[in-house]
Amino acid sequence: MTFSFDPVLQTTLAPGSIAVIGATEDPNKVGGRPLHYLQRFGFAGTIYPVNPRRDTVQGLPSYASLTELPDTPDVAIVAVGQDAVPNVIDQCAARGIHSAIVMSSGFGETGNAGVERQKSLVDQARRLGIRLVGPNAQGVANFHTGAVMNFSTMFMEIEPEDGPVAIVSQSGAASVMPYAMLRERGIGVRYLIASGNDADTSVCELALACAADPDIQVILLYIESLADPDMLSRTVRLARSHGAAVIALKAGRSANGSKAAASHTGAIVNDDVVVDAFLERHGIWRAPDVHGLVNAVELYLATPPRPANGLVVMSHSGAVGVLCADVAETLDLPLTELHPAVIRDLSGIMPSFATAQNPVDLTATLMTQSGMYASTLNVLATDPHADMFLIGVPVAGPGYDVPGMAADTARFAAATGKPAIVCAPQVSVRQHFRDANIPVFANETDAIHALHQWSRHGALIQQAERRDGLETIGVPVSRLGAGHDRFLSEDASLAMLAAAGIPIVPYAVCNSADEAVAAWRDLGHEVVVKACSALIPHKSEHGLVFLGLDSEMQIVEAWNRCAQGVAALDVPFDGVIVARRVRGRHEFALGVRQDPIFGTVVMIGDGGKYVEALRDFVVLLYPFSEQDVIAKLRTLRIAPILDGVRGEAPVDLVALARVAVALGRLSATYQHDIASIDLNPLIIGDMGSGGWAVDAVIERTKEES
Amino acid sequence: MTFSFDPVLQTTLAPGSIAVIGATEDPNKVGGRPLHYLQRFGFAGTIYPVNPRRDTVQGLPSYASLTELPDTPDVAIVAVGQDAVPNVIDQCAARGIHSAIVMSSGFGETGNAGVERQKSLVDQARRLGIRLVGPNAQGVANFHTGAVMNFSTMFMEIEPEDGPVAIVSQSGAASVMPYAMLRERGIGVRYLIASGNDADTSVCELALACAADPDIQVILLYIESLADPDMLSRTVRLARSHGAAVIALKAGRSANGSKAAASHTGAIVNDDVVVDAFLERHGIWRAPDVHGLVNAVELYLATPPRPANGLVVMSHSGAVGVLCADVAETLDLPLTELHPAVIRDLSGIMPSFATAQNPVDLTATLMTQSGMYASTLNVLATDPHADMFLIGVPVAGPGYDVPGMAADTARFAAATGKPAIVCAPQVSVRQHFRDANIPVFANETDAIHALHQWSRHGALIQQAERRDGLETIGVPVSRLGAGHDRFLSEDASLAMLAAAGIPIVPYAVCNSADEAVAAWRDLGHEVVVKACSALIPHKSEHGLVFLGLDSEMQIVEAWNRCAQGVAALDVPFDGVIVARRVRGRHEFALGVRQDPIFGTVVMIGDGGKYVEALRDFVVLLYPFSEQDVIAKLRTLRIAPILDGVRGEAPVDLVALARVAVALGRLSATYQHDIASIDLNPLIIGDMGSGGWAVDAVIERTKEES
Repeated sequence: MTFSFDPVLQTTLAPGSIAVIGATEDPNKVGGRPLHYLQRFGFAGTIYPVNPRRDTVQGLPSYASLTELPDTPDVAIVAVGQDAVPNVIDQCAARGIHSAIVMSSGFGETGNAGVERQKSLVDQARRLGIRLVGPNAQGVANFHTGAVMNFSTMFMEIEPEDGPVAIVSQSGAASVMPYAMLRERGIGVRYLIASGNDADTSVCELALACAADPDIQVILLYIESLADPDMLSRTVRLARSHGAAVIALKAGRSANGSKAAASHTGAIVNDDVVVDAFLERHGIWRAPDVHGLVNAVELYLATPPRPANGLVVMSHSGAVGVLCADVAETLDLPLTELHPAVIRDLSGIMPSFATAQNPVDLTATLMTQSGMYASTLNVLATDPHADMFLIGVPVAGPGYDVPGMAADTARFAAATGKPAIVCAPQVSVRQHFRDANIPVFANETDAIHALHQWSRHGALIQQAERRDGLETIGVPVSRLGAGHDRFLSEDASLAMLAAAGIPIVPYAVCNSADEAVAAWRDLGHEVVVKACSALIPHKSEHGLVFLGLDSEMQIVEAWNRCAQGVAALDVPFDGVIVARRVRGRHEFALGVRQDPIFGTVVMIGDGGKYVEALRDFVVLLYPFSEQDVIAKLRTLRIAPILDGVRGEAPVDLVALARVAVALGRLSATYQHDIASIDLNPLIIGDMGSGGWAVDAVIERTKEES
Repeated sequence: MTFSFDPVLQTTLAPGSIAVIGATEDPNKVGGRPLHYLQRFGFAGTIYPVNPRRDTVQGLPSYASLTELPDTPDVAIVAVGQDAVPNVIDQCAARGIHSAIVMSSGFGETGNAGVERQKSLVDQARRLGIRLVGPNAQGVANFHTGAVMNFSTMFMEIEPEDGPVAIVSQSGAASVMPYAMLRERGIGVRYLIASGNDADTSVCELALACAADPDIQVILLYIESLADPDMLSRTVRLARSHGAAVIALKAGRSANGSKAAASHTGAIVNDDVVVDAFLERHGIWRAPDVHGLVNAVELYLATPPRPANGLVVMSHSGAVGVLCADVAETLDLPLTELHPAVIRDLSGIMPSFATAQNPVDLTATLMTQSGMYASTLNVLATDPHADMFLIGVPVAGPGYDVPGMAADTARFAAATGKPAIVCAPQVSVRQHFRDANIPVFANETDAIHALHQWSRHGALIQQAERRDGLETIGVPVSRLGAGHDRFLSEDASLAMLAAAGIPIVPYAVCNSADEAVAAWRDLGHEVVVKACSALIPHKSEHGLVFLGLDSEMQIVEAWNRCAQGVAALDVPFDGVIVARRVRGRHEFALGVRQDPIFGTVVMIGDGGKYVEALRDFVVLLYPFSEQDVIAKLRTLRIAPILDGVRGEAPVDLVALARVAVALGRLSATYQHDIASIDLNPLIIGDMGSGGWAVDAVIERTKEES
């Protein structure tokens, strides 16, 4: 695929000339801040303040209007009252400007009238060929060129520095909070974009423009509403193509949070589990909060994320080892066992009471034998099981050679190419290591979380690349025959599943009691009898499912009650299904639906009557492989019993995965006509014995009226 | 109860005079550091360096031996080689010294010979009436009096300040890490104790001595091995008696962590779920890590913890509100709904597009109308649903009146008596609020976690006080009759449960097939038939449980197979149990055991065959009330289905709670003779219909041999 993006947005990020409409003298006003910043942070291009009431603004010659400018600026910053904005956009078009950053507020964020104003503004801009950032945007900052077209107060307070990080956010506050935290860690930020109402250019399209900069190694996103995931998938592919990683904070994951987000931005509310599945699918790490958004960045910049498992902890305090082991285990990243040769070699250089195991405890002996630090690292470097290293320095000061330890660590990291990070509560200690380019953390929890994220994100990226390959294969789209009922009958639904290669329970549709009795005999006497009608998708709610029948007479009676029940409901009668009663190991529930934003969404969960109440399910975006399904099933709460406990055989997860893939493909094939498919239950047997869809409901897409 | 504690330890914490045995000139050596600190931090008492090879040490007159001292010191610091320690302890005794802080290492932490050395040292000290801290102790520091008998390097680096906090730790590193974090937040620490090997005085007994200081408001504990919980329960009661709170970091909660802890300290490994239950029972907050140990301390010092629910978030950024709502919901502390009158009043003072809801979004209007901050707070102060307030300040600088906001917040907090905290990524902004005594946090996650902890810890303390009342009632201890088998038979077990008021399934013990047939008739034809023998506690493993019997003949055959099966196993035959087959709503598993350290431990979990695999259970220490049980059941993963879903009645949790209380009481009554009781399953019906213990195994305590 190509990573096509609008060149206008490239220019917006790195303009050669900038007009500021509504330029004011006061650097603490919206129209004054960018002018102040452009000069303060050394923007080398041309700045055109536009203000008809002044000759100069902040020392620069001012222009009465855009028409008077000697040249066409690349970007117009619009900082005028809401009512004046449309007129300014017209003037921009007249002057040949293709990019406007609209800082003016009073649009979509202020209720119905504002929403209308915003809609009309976007229509106008698109008609005129102008790309908008905003309205209500804090703006775009480029600290490489000094093109700081952003009015945040934060840069007055915390000095910027260029670096390999881009922050792209729908919210102004959520753009500068991670900025402040990164700068406190000494990390430089190149782009800081707060896109406001996202009316034309979305936060994802702006991220795509950042991803086009090969110097950017990490892109941090803050999103409250994900409206164009396709743009985000392009961003992450472009980023991955030059080894950059994307970390996203998608806020509004809770009920209250999404309500607040909707009230904050007026934007659509995403289904959070689908957002999770989307980010995972594309190898985007989802941060839980702002701290989590920045916590691992220092580590990523030192070593790009890659799959890893072997965690080694070393400290001169046993307690640090214990604490790290505890945190690591909660993250399912247990400390690795050292290779026997490494344990032997360590025992040779450590005092008898020190621990030549992982966690490695150098003990306070470190104070008297400072060479032990380097020699221990040298031995650890030979361990084939070790992928990443955490060094805890809970205390240092007189008696400790911290600069020496930092140099030893840097040599070790360079020699092994493996990440080595340090946690230390003392700022002064951290600074020594940071000066040696070692990522540092204030506490062991942050440090372990960073390594966990680094390695798991590495695995996620690898998985995403593999799944990109699946996507290029594509699915031929078919159309369903015409039909007016919302649901297909169970017979029609099961037949469609069977045609798609999904194993279904043996059954017969019986149009008479005699046929039902014959089917009962054919199917081996243990059967379920249920009414079949496209208008009764949930038969059991109407008492139209019969079990435990063990005589011809009971079969006849069940058939009659089905027929009567359907008649009583006054809906078309599509016969009676007599199906073999199958027993397996576990009942699962499978569902798939077409999401208007994210496409084909497959859900696989623990089945039974408490599906909704216990909510033990996983979600995958199609396409995916059987291997992807099996990996996700390992995260179910019931996972511990799927491998078989107390002498049981494992559950046939391969069969389950095969059904999930077929179901996703079926739904993608009929993406225009099938809204959803539910299989509940899907009964799965012991490994090797497969499974059976026992009931199915296929829902048609609502026809546009 | 009284809070008796050893007065010698009180003196150890605040001595008038201190001898340092092994005093050295070098302040970077173990024997030199305390001398350096005692002088540097203004200890006003007498210091006696003991060093036969010098006339003075660090400017103080030195003594050749303890016998030469002009007076008896309150505490002796022992900083000599391991082999010299016993001799020094003898000299201490001769000089009338009752307290020794043994910094010397080479004892329990160094393998078998060290363990022996340590045991003999403790025996010696106890014989001579000397209390020991250590050995291998970093020591005791009192920053109120300057009695810094602690060799940590940390005080060379981070200046101490007296304050209302005590840190008591088994580990040196884990004592100074929280110290560094607290000092970074400007919080003063009075006691910093690292107790080392805990050979005589335990970390808990030292905490008890700290709790006796009425100035101490928060006690932070780091524990790797909890050997004397009784001392800890005394500590927390004494602390609570003057409104102080205890927060504990119990490390080694993971398998790797506890292995590392055992290798680090050689100490016993606690069952982590029982530790949880113990800390909860006593109102001790369990911190997940060192950061969590200190995170809420600033808030506790501003307002002692109390039960609360109504969380209100206010910010001039909508994103902060969304982020806070997300974090709060993951902690099950959703944002409260504001009172309608408050919403009305807020709407009056906020711009039309601002959000007069919780989270309250002041919008950037705050910059132009700084009075809105105080007026919004004034309205929020009137809300009866609001218990605690988080104010987010994601950015500030020119244009923001931060000192004014800080003063407004302080007035608000003083007027309402409710906690109001601020989160801000900028250090400078935090400092303004901190100067006004407002607790501050660097990010919204830490802030929400602190309020969550504060309110839940408040509830925990209240619960602990109520449960203290239960404990004073006591349980009369009875003895079980003599018996040699490890288990009681099912008949004997069920009879004991019935006598304790636990409803059991109707059954008969049948000594002949005829009796079994009669019982089958009496019990209504649906029965379970199972062999009864004290030597076969798990009958189903031997195929000695029969179900689905529906004729006299089948009953006879089942009786015969039970009798033959027992005979084949060559164990005593106690008859055959014929029990009514009961059906309820849910199967639970209940267990109780006598823990040698923690007493009567009751476990209640989701029952069925996957009890061990799915591990969905709660643990309570006896005594507890039915209300305590019901509150804990709400934390089960299956909790969502216990109230009844899809039209079901709720499960009779009252009946379940009653059984749990009765089971705890039964076990406590026979604490010397019953090691454990297992009920699996306990079948519970719909609310009001009770439940039935269907199977029970009572295990005798092993007789000492």
